[in-house]
Parts: sequence; structure tokens; C-alpha cells
Amino acid sequence: MEDPMQFVLDSRLATDTIVLGDMLLSRVLLMNDARFPWLVIVPRRPSLREFLDLAATERAILMEEIAKASAALKDVTQAEKLNVAALGNMVPQLHIHVIARFAGDPAWPNPVWGRGQAVPYETDSVEKFAAEIGHKLGFV
Amino acid sequence: MEDPMQFVLDSRLATDTIVLGDMLLSRVLLMNDARFPWLVIVPRRPSLREFLDLAATERAILMEEIAKASAALKDVTQAEKLNVAALGNMVPQLHIHVIARFAGDPAWPNPVWGRGQAVPYETDSVEKFAAEIGHKLGFV
Repeated sequence: MEDPMQFVLDSRLATDTIVLGDMLLSRVLLMNDARFPWLVIVPRRPSLREFLDLAATERAILMEEIAKASAALKDVTQAEKLNVAALGNMVPQLHIHVIARFAGDPAWPNPVWGRGQAVPYETDSVEKFAAEIGHKLGFV
Repeated sequence: MEDPMQFVLDSRLATDTIVLGDMLLSRVLLMNDARFPWLVIVPRRPSLREFLDLAATERAILMEEIAKASAALKDVTQAEKLNVAALGNMVPQLHIHVIARFAGDPAWPNPVWGRGQAVPYETDSVEKFAAEIGHKLGFV
């Protein structure tokens, strides 16, 4: 049984992603879907479902961590547009998607969720991409 | 021709929504779609496309305005889940969706975007809903 006082990454997020590193508040994950360059930001606090479950000071930190992750993703991918979203209809643990979008990507101009099956990265390319993002965020 | 130094609400947002009022930074709109209780938050600054286009101090204000709008929407609708998203693939002006979700709503558990046609509110019900949200946000 999970300790409600302790942060544990949701099992579906753990399955679908690769851990890049931790910022002050949040863990940064890379979605293992080569179709879309896609980070997931998860505040490391237990029992969060909504932004409203955080204190205002933590929300301010979270916003800056979203901005840092957004800037790193944009720099590395030259994204034409960023999609930033906290949905949580399927995975209740609060997590924020930060997705690099391009006119002509497999879902454009629609949102990416629920569009076919994820295409896992090749090992070499995910290592390169993870290192580039990690470098921008000071993890490596 | 639009003045790039002046905020003008995007014409599609203006068409699809009803203005509820202004917070310090953002205009609060109600999406005219009775299927989903749905606010749209638009920072009143010209030429914004991404969170990254705002200064950090303005991002902190925006996060608190998103939280206030979220709390108002949750209080009024008793939402089971909130969806918060800045997409902008179709409407480039930075705008943040805050949507009340319910298990069993017409899109659940998928995102709401691109699911059929909007169903405009009846005049009475939109006036009541707008007044309730506006009251929570101090507009009326």
C-alpha cells in the first residue's frame, strides 16, 4: 500500500516515460513516443490532482519549472508551437504535458492525446535527445 | 491593421465566447458551449503566443489567475476534474482553457477539443452561469 505522505510516481507515467531528472519541485520525464517531442513535469508532492492542491508559492515554482522545460524543449527541437496541459482524466496524479508541435506532425493541428499508438524511440536517438534536454536543464 | 503594441482579443475567441470580465492581467471568457463548463483566460498583452513570451513575474500572476478561475469554476460546477491547457495550434493568441470535466460528459475521458459541434447555451442559463462565475471572481 502506498504511503499517502510520500511521493511515488504514478505507475502508468513510469511505464510510458523515461526519467530525465529532478528540478527543485518537479520530476522531468520524457514520453517514450518518437512521434512527438514530449516532456511531462510531475511535482514531487503526494496526493496532488489539481494545481489548486498546491500552495500559491509552489504553483509559482511549478510555473517557472514549466517555463524552463518549455524553453529547453523549444531550444532543442526548434518547435513551432508548444502545447502545455494538465488534464489528468486518465492518470489522476498531477502532471503537466509540455509538447513540441510542428505543422505537419502526425496530429497537427489537433491535440496529441488519443492519436494512435506511441512509437518508442530507438535507443541511440532517445539517449541523444535525453542528454540534450538534460544538459539544458542542468541535469547532466 | 492591428496595432502590434495593443491587445486585441483574437476574432475567433471573440466569436466563440462571452466576456465575463478582467482580472489584473487576464480577460476571462466563457466558452459558448453548454456541453462543457469552460473558461478561457487571455492575458491582455499584445503579441503573446507562449508562456515563454511573458516575463516571469507576469507568469506568476497568470498562474494565480488560472488558479482563481479554476477555483471559481470548480465551486460553481462541482467539477470532478479540471483540465487546464494552453494549446494554440489553431488560435495563435496565448489563451488558457480551464474546463470542468465529469465522468460521463460527452468527451470523457478524452480531451474536449475537436469533439463535434458546440451547443450554444440558452440565454437564461448562460446569464445565470456567467453571473455565478463573475460573482466568485469579483466581477459583479
